[in-house]
Amino acid sequence: MKKILIIGAGLSSSSLIKYLLDNSEEHNWKVLIGDLSEETAKKKVNNHPNGEAFKFDINDSQKRDKLISEADIVVSMLPASMHFSVAEACVRFGKNMVTASYVSKEIRTLDEEAKKKGVLLLNEIGVDPGIDHMSAMQVIDRIREQGDEITEFESNTGGLVAPKYDNNPWNYKFTWNPRNVILAGQGSCSQFLHNGKFKYIPYNKLFERTERINVLNLGEFEVYPNRDSLSYRSIYGLKNVDTMFRGTIRRPGFSRAWNAFVQMGATDDSFVYQDSENHTYREFINSFTKFSANKNVEQKVADYLKLDIESEIMYKLRWTGIFEDKKIGLKNASPAQILQHLLEEKWSMDLDDKDMIVMQHQFVYKQNGVKKKLYSSLVVYGEDQTHTAMSITVGIPVAIAVKMILTGKIKETGVKIPIEKNIYQPVLKELENYKIKFIEEEVDWSEEVTGI
Amino acid sequence: MKKILIIGAGLSSSSLIKYLLDNSEEHNWKVLIGDLSEETAKKKVNNHPNGEAFKFDINDSQKRDKLISEADIVVSMLPASMHFSVAEACVRFGKNMVTASYVSKEIRTLDEEAKKKGVLLLNEIGVDPGIDHMSAMQVIDRIREQGDEITEFESNTGGLVAPKYDNNPWNYKFTWNPRNVILAGQGSCSQFLHNGKFKYIPYNKLFERTERINVLNLGEFEVYPNRDSLSYRSIYGLKNVDTMFRGTIRRPGFSRAWNAFVQMGATDDSFVYQDSENHTYREFINSFTKFSANKNVEQKVADYLKLDIESEIMYKLRWTGIFEDKKIGLKNASPAQILQHLLEEKWSMDLDDKDMIVMQHQFVYKQNGVKKKLYSSLVVYGEDQTHTAMSITVGIPVAIAVKMILTGKIKETGVKIPIEKNIYQPVLKELENYKIKFIEEEVDWSEEVTGI
Repeated sequence: MKKILIIGAGLSSSSLIKYLLDNSEEHNWKVLIGDLSEETAKKKVNNHPNGEAFKFDINDSQKRDKLISEADIVVSMLPASMHFSVAEACVRFGKNMVTASYVSKEIRTLDEEAKKKGVLLLNEIGVDPGIDHMSAMQVIDRIREQGDEITEFESNTGGLVAPKYDNNPWNYKFTWNPRNVILAGQGSCSQFLHNGKFKYIPYNKLFERTERINVLNLGEFEVYPNRDSLSYRSIYGLKNVDTMFRGTIRRPGFSRAWNAFVQMGATDDSFVYQDSENHTYREFINSFTKFSANKNVEQKVADYLKLDIESEIMYKLRWTGIFEDKKIGLKNASPAQILQHLLEEKWSMDLDDKDMIVMQHQFVYKQNGVKKKLYSSLVVYGEDQTHTAMSITVGIPVAIAVKMILTGKIKETGVKIPIEKNIYQPVLKELENYKIKFIEEEVDWSEEVTGI
Repeated sequence: MKKILIIGAGLSSSSLIKYLLDNSEEHNWKVLIGDLSEETAKKKVNNHPNGEAFKFDINDSQKRDKLISEADIVVSMLPASMHFSVAEACVRFGKNMVTASYVSKEIRTLDEEAKKKGVLLLNEIGVDPGIDHMSAMQVIDRIREQGDEITEFESNTGGLVAPKYDNNPWNYKFTWNPRNVILAGQGSCSQFLHNGKFKYIPYNKLFERTERINVLNLGEFEVYPNRDSLSYRSIYGLKNVDTMFRGTIRRPGFSRAWNAFVQMGATDDSFVYQDSENHTYREFINSFTKFSANKNVEQKVADYLKLDIESEIMYKLRWTGIFEDKKIGLKNASPAQILQHLLEEKWSMDLDDKDMIVMQHQFVYKQNGVKKKLYSSLVVYGEDQTHTAMSITVGIPVAIAVKMILTGKIKETGVKIPIEKNIYQPVLKELENYKIKFIEEEVDWSEEVTGI
């Protein structure tokens, strides 16, 4: 029996573990699942005879080394910052490893040693990064093989609540780590290339630099720029494109309303808000406004943001409860933590709610001197609160990669991401069995008159 | 002869060195001046028989230890981050030390050991911090001794070009380190207390949260908040005040025009602008704007900032040359460095220009149940390009402190700042000989109707 070691059994591991257990009989696999919480791991195994759940702390280096040395392949579903100690041990013991996270600088340093040992460290094979890379490269390679030249590339992804359950004025619910949503865009300037010109957007302008897109029959969405689009020119081999843009998808109106919190300073995570436990949300938001002897807090916020107090954005803000005289009740919290606490009540998924993943690539390419435009779009719906769209789209590609490595279909070594045909092609093909299938549309190309 | 060791002979040391040399005959002092540039040090000594200039690199720890062990007192005029190695050696060799910089966390750790060794590390005795502390504490202590209660405190300081030489549309020239001006307000949220309420201002709102003040007969100024005002409640012993605010003084209109650069992203120092050497300033500012097929760069900037293209702010921007098709010529520069490069040409002082320091404290206090308001204001003009207002107001208090320590008038030990009467009183008294004299005005108190 081949042993698959999975480290981390959180939400994102559900569909991954199910796939591997479902296929364990056929392939003669044993699936070992370690998590800080034994209960969480046990729940995912669900008494499957080929599964084994146990408590495991990655900081226990003795146990880590024992587990990894005895495994045939290792999947790390830990937070990205914890992958390195797993990867280092995998290289040491000559074991292949798969993650759904971005390749960190530290992981990259293992490339040479991994090659020497004949070890593959396959990363970025979840959804974003993961399915985005594979589906983009499939089209890019095909256009190139046709002898055509790609001049523009844009790729947008979002995790949202499915339309049927989309019933709040923000058209948004948390379907993934809320903290990442609160801090989105912070840290450094967004950078991309548009019509041959480099574009830079600071955090304070990010959420008003949106564009509209249509995805299949789902209607309109809006997109705000991700932080780093420029590095994808070399990753995808698109060094000469005029436009290279990656963005995050929301429903129209979300970004400009979110921008109200950004402008006020309420997303700041760099300092502790004084006496956060005893202040109310109304006092909290008031502390960012300008003094006025005559206005109430709502009027101060509206005027400060140059908004009509009856505007849609002010309505969205009121709906969150930010103006309510309700105690925050969080000790020593930053503004970002306070805002997250408030929104976790309002933007949480109900028990029967389902999420969705929306992804769309846009390609412009030259064919015999004529510009053509192609959309490639994906929508995936969650099945329930365990097998969410996020869990499926992160976990199934990881699981397929594990199967392909164990069955000898992937033979690469070193630190890799799935941008090569021999990896992405079979993975994308099998993903279609899980309703993860891109739909292509040829659209008319015309000179842009608006843009980000 | 007593030996005074001065480390660092830059602009801020000019008046300090002159004072010490002028007084060296009377007090039998030898003034030793070490700088990375021997020439700079020699210029400041100007062949004075009691002065000695030499090349000195603070990283040469052997020479550092030799110099400090042979000195009677040490003045560090190095950049603030370099004080610690001097302070540590001073404690080790039992030597007193004076700086004009904020007490860092590292320096604070030396307090106990310094007290054990009977060593004084006196910091924050320049202008801001320095004269601001001393002059504020003099009034605070006096009001308290009258039995009255301070309810509000505000303190503002600015380094500006003197009115006679104030001839550009920004009413501003660099009179100090330009980089600090470009990066002002970055890094963390501004925090203060106003009418009993905590107020927080993020960087993107800072330069539109200004108030107007009048200083003596110099007319109107505007003030934007410094980053940290809250900590001054405990430093000044004003724990129960309703208002605690410290700000930076500019001429009216400066901040809102500067805000244009902030909003665009042109003050960002966190990334390298692509191909900065070969781009023009026009291309640079265009890279922050939103795409438009029909507008020129000026119109895009104006629309992006919601400004009339003929507005005063747009006029100020145009004046800087930011829209000119002139090559930047700086390699691998951040936006902040590019902007500094541009402004150093435009905002530099002419050879005959003189600078000024403006400082104003505002106190509100209760006397027999009646609220009173008091202004205490200072204006200092530079004498020339060597003895600038900045150099005088930083250097003379440091020099006076050195004299008082050497003559036994200051006997404290440990890590100190000049907030105690036995230090600030004689220093402020002597500063009057150098035209550094605060003027007090009682003004009517009335309930605020506007504010920051």
